[in-house]
Amino acid sequence: MLKEKPGNNGWRDQVHEVIFEADTYGGKLFDIGLILSIILSVLAVMLDSIAEVRHIFGGELYLIEWIFTVLFSIEYIMRIISIKKPFSYIFSFYGIVDLLAILPTFLSLLFPGTQYLLVIRILRVLRIFRILKFVQYITEAKMLRQALLASRRKITVFLFTVLTVVVIMGAIMYLVEGAGNGFTSIPKSIYWAIVTLTTVGYGDISPATPLGQMLASVLMIMGYGIIAVPTGIVTVEFSRLKDNQVNTQSCPACGKDGHDNDAVHCKYCGHKL
Amino acid sequence: MLKEKPGNNGWRDQVHEVIFEADTYGGKLFDIGLILSIILSVLAVMLDSIAEVRHIFGGELYLIEWIFTVLFSIEYIMRIISIKKPFSYIFSFYGIVDLLAILPTFLSLLFPGTQYLLVIRILRVLRIFRILKFVQYITEAKMLRQALLASRRKITVFLFTVLTVVVIMGAIMYLVEGAGNGFTSIPKSIYWAIVTLTTVGYGDISPATPLGQMLASVLMIMGYGIIAVPTGIVTVEFSRLKDNQVNTQSCPACGKDGHDNDAVHCKYCGHKL
Amino acid sequence: MLKEKPGNNGWRDQVHEVIFEADTYGGKLFDIGLILSIILSVLAVMLDSIAEVRHIFGGELYLIEWIFTVLFSIEYIMRIISIKKPFSYIFSFYGIVDLLAILPTFLSLLFPGTQYLLVIRILRVLRIFRILKFVQYITEAKMLRQALLASRRKITVFLFTVLTVVVIMGAIMYLVEGAGNGFTSIPKSIYWAIVTLTTVGYGDISPATPLGQMLASVLMIMGYGIIAVPTGIVTVEFSRLKDNQVNTQSCPACGKDGHDNDAVHCKYCGHKL
Amino acid sequence: MLKEKPGNNGWRDQVHEVIFEADTYGGKLFDIGLILSIILSVLAVMLDSIAEVRHIFGGELYLIEWIFTVLFSIEYIMRIISIKKPFSYIFSFYGIVDLLAILPTFLSLLFPGTQYLLVIRILRVLRIFRILKFVQYITEAKMLRQALLASRRKITVFLFTVLTVVVIMGAIMYLVEGAGNGFTSIPKSIYWAIVTLTTVGYGDISPATPLGQMLASVLMIMGYGIIAVPTGIVTVEFSRLKDNQVNTQSCPACGKDGHDNDAVHCKYCGHKL
Repeated sequence: MLKEKPGNNGWRDQVHEVIFEADTYGGKLFDIGLILSIILSVLAVMLDSIAEVRHIFGGELYLIEWIFTVLFSIEYIMRIISIKKPFSYIFSFYGIVDLLAILPTFLSLLFPGTQYLLVIRILRVLRIFRILKFVQYITEAKMLRQALLASRRKITVFLFTVLTVVVIMGAIMYLVEGAGNGFTSIPKSIYWAIVTLTTVGYGDISPATPLGQMLASVLMIMGYGIIAVPTGIVTVEFSRLKDNQVNTQSCPACGKDGHDNDAVHCKYCGHKL
Repeated sequence: MLKEKPGNNGWRDQVHEVIFEADTYGGKLFDIGLILSIILSVLAVMLDSIAEVRHIFGGELYLIEWIFTVLFSIEYIMRIISIKKPFSYIFSFYGIVDLLAILPTFLSLLFPGTQYLLVIRILRVLRIFRILKFVQYITEAKMLRQALLASRRKITVFLFTVLTVVVIMGAIMYLVEGAGNGFTSIPKSIYWAIVTLTTVGYGDISPATPLGQMLASVLMIMGYGIIAVPTGIVTVEFSRLKDNQVNTQSCPACGKDGHDNDAVHCKYCGHKL
Repeated sequence: MLKEKPGNNGWRDQVHEVIFEADTYGGKLFDIGLILSIILSVLAVMLDSIAEVRHIFGGELYLIEWIFTVLFSIEYIMRIISIKKPFSYIFSFYGIVDLLAILPTFLSLLFPGTQYLLVIRILRVLRIFRILKFVQYITEAKMLRQALLASRRKITVFLFTVLTVVVIMGAIMYLVEGAGNGFTSIPKSIYWAIVTLTTVGYGDISPATPLGQMLASVLMIMGYGIIAVPTGIVTVEFSRLKDNQVNTQSCPACGKDGHDNDAVHCKYCGHKL
Repeated sequence: MLKEKPGNNGWRDQVHEVIFEADTYGGKLFDIGLILSIILSVLAVMLDSIAEVRHIFGGELYLIEWIFTVLFSIEYIMRIISIKKPFSYIFSFYGIVDLLAILPTFLSLLFPGTQYLLVIRILRVLRIFRILKFVQYITEAKMLRQALLASRRKITVFLFTVLTVVVIMGAIMYLVEGAGNGFTSIPKSIYWAIVTLTTVGYGDISPATPLGQMLASVLMIMGYGIIAVPTGIVTVEFSRLKDNQVNTQSCPACGKDGHDNDAVHCKYCGHKL
């Protein structure tokens, strides 16, 4: 996002400043109005999905949905027009979310029901972090993402192991339990294995034979235990992150480092840092 | 809580010492009696909620409830009278809890049923830590709270992510499963998504279509895995706390503390420790 | 356990050596036979509880139960006779377990059904660690216990918080849901709150009103998140334990410590340790 | 796996290079074809287990199953023939998996239904790591395995504790709840205890008496809390691994490695690093 001096650059620059920046009074007002509109429109979609509410307020909610969609469409077009490099916006994360936030209403004309996908508008609320100048929140979010990225290989290996276990366990349980107890096919048995390993345990399908219950017990204890693996991985990455945060400044006198961020003097020789 | 010498300051000071302090014989006795009363009154409320018990002992329990309420009301008034700064007590955590511990009985005269909120009296039992002089317990509790506070931003980001996931997943499942399988509205589907992501898995609502079960599987594995995130955050904060705990040495020159264990000089003023 | 030289100390010493020690051939043989008897007798109790099995083999299993009980009773008496200080054995952990392992059979003559408590015999299998000379296993078990003991105060604070939450949440849900949906009393609602907070989620009781489901969602996310607290506590204790395990030997030349256990030379000055 | 220069060593060497190596064009092509065949054959087995699909495409799927089995059998024989030391392959992990991947089809001629065990073929997909030259993935997997191996004793102690708890709790609940509520035998009650302790909570069996619900609550809170133990163990091992990973410097004098980052001298021979 380019930051330019407001001047005699015409209406485009003024629009850009209002909808892309949050520094001016107009920009702040616009952003707050936007967040409120997003939340209201998501609530409207949710209410519309409740049969009793739709029965009474169906017309009003349909109108509200279209009003918000038209408003968001205008905003989307204004964003494209006012920015210097429209394509970098269109294909950015926010650009795609902004488009997905209006598409379902138009799609619902062709495929009824798809308007409920409008809840994806909730993602637009992420902009809230910008308005509130929650720089620290963004830093923390970045740190979390960085730690998860650093452990992606270990997590892939873990997920592959989990998938292998549930596929094989699903097939065995299909043979052991048979179709009588809900294990009607291998994919369904795999679904059951996932429900069990992740300790969700709906109980919509559950083993009834002694052998099946024994195997399920093994799977449960396994699921109960191996949760330790991703937890361990992520914890270690987080603790690493913390260490990196530590000051890397070294003392100009003795050359030692490892000082705290608030240190004014070297803790080894007392020299001013 | 002010600590004053008992003397010829009149009955107010004596009352204050008995109900606010736990150092004297009278104060200790009062506190033990208070804890017992609290536990008994909470048990009475619980018993009263069991239909079979209320059927037989309803009158007695109603009487007990009023006796305890009157006693606690007198105690509440005495506390306000005997303390120097009544408002700082009234609006303190314990002041509000003490008020909430008597209000429901009076409210139940207007709105039957609210007397069950009396279980909030259980919070009064927190005073037990004071009597038993479990200073260490209070220290530990403070340390836990401190660590959780230190990680509040990361946890906010985590909760926001979780909420976004359950809202979007709820809407998708509403479309995929339809009202037939219990997914009667988006809010209900979001409730299901929370039940699933947190690995609670009641099974009151569970997907029945193959596509729904596939999406649910993804949500379950996600919920199973991302529990690692808050765990990692909190663990790192706890381990940090442990480290900070070690050295409580303060600088003889500037008086600041928070030095590392291997520090030879004060990191703020450079003075030898 | 005293270790004495076998000599002309009579039959008592010989009995003692066989049943208390595992160093001699006889002692080892006795211990292996004991473990097998324990496992067999526990299996017999389990089988006896299955109606179909009891119907056919009830007599045989009853006989087996009495045979094992008589054998274990003789062993118990022999242990008391052969040891120098009988009371220190009787009131030790193993002494009490040994008694509990025979009592239920005799009690079942008075109170039918109590014989199923014989499964407590499984605790006797703990002796297996002694026979197999799994010294390391005992060390590891001690380390785990030590870490858990070190964090007992924090865990008490945590448990107290959890109990307070489930009591208050139980009372609120009792008011919100009413008896119609299974929330028939406050104790039952508290049971539901525990089932939910611990993410077990049987589904035998589950909220049906929108408000109840909202409150339940809050409880679930809370339960999902605060599991991080005990995990963090225990992890930090374990990591501390690990550090303590590190060699505390200091270099005789430069005096620095922190050497690995396999270090032969000081890593700072190269002097022989 | 021996790596030899391709030359005039006959067709055996050429076959070996294609099916065992992934460096040449032919070898890579073979491996990609193999992975695709494995995935397709596993999908075919899964589809065949769905009654509706088998009803329509049963014949085709049966044919596909046999085609893949014949292909994999030929590949298995080729592997044995082309390798120098056939037995070291046959009894290796991959050798056994390759055999298990074809056996069920032949077994299904004798015992109908066993063909579903063919999903074990999914294990063959592990070869994918070799083709894609995901050396890092293998390193990460090895690190995870190493950490789990290092904590195997602690985990054994933990599992033994869990087993003891569920056996004793199962027997008590069998007595408390009786056969009426699904606790029909001690083994079944133990199954319930595992379902509860691991926080899976199907709800197929759940306590109905007040005492049973109280005991179940204790078990749930226990299960909710002790998950911290394996998590703590594994996390500490992982963090250790991380530390060990850092320094890979080996001593110029004695060649040993595993030195700390702050080491100046080799800890084995004292030579300057």
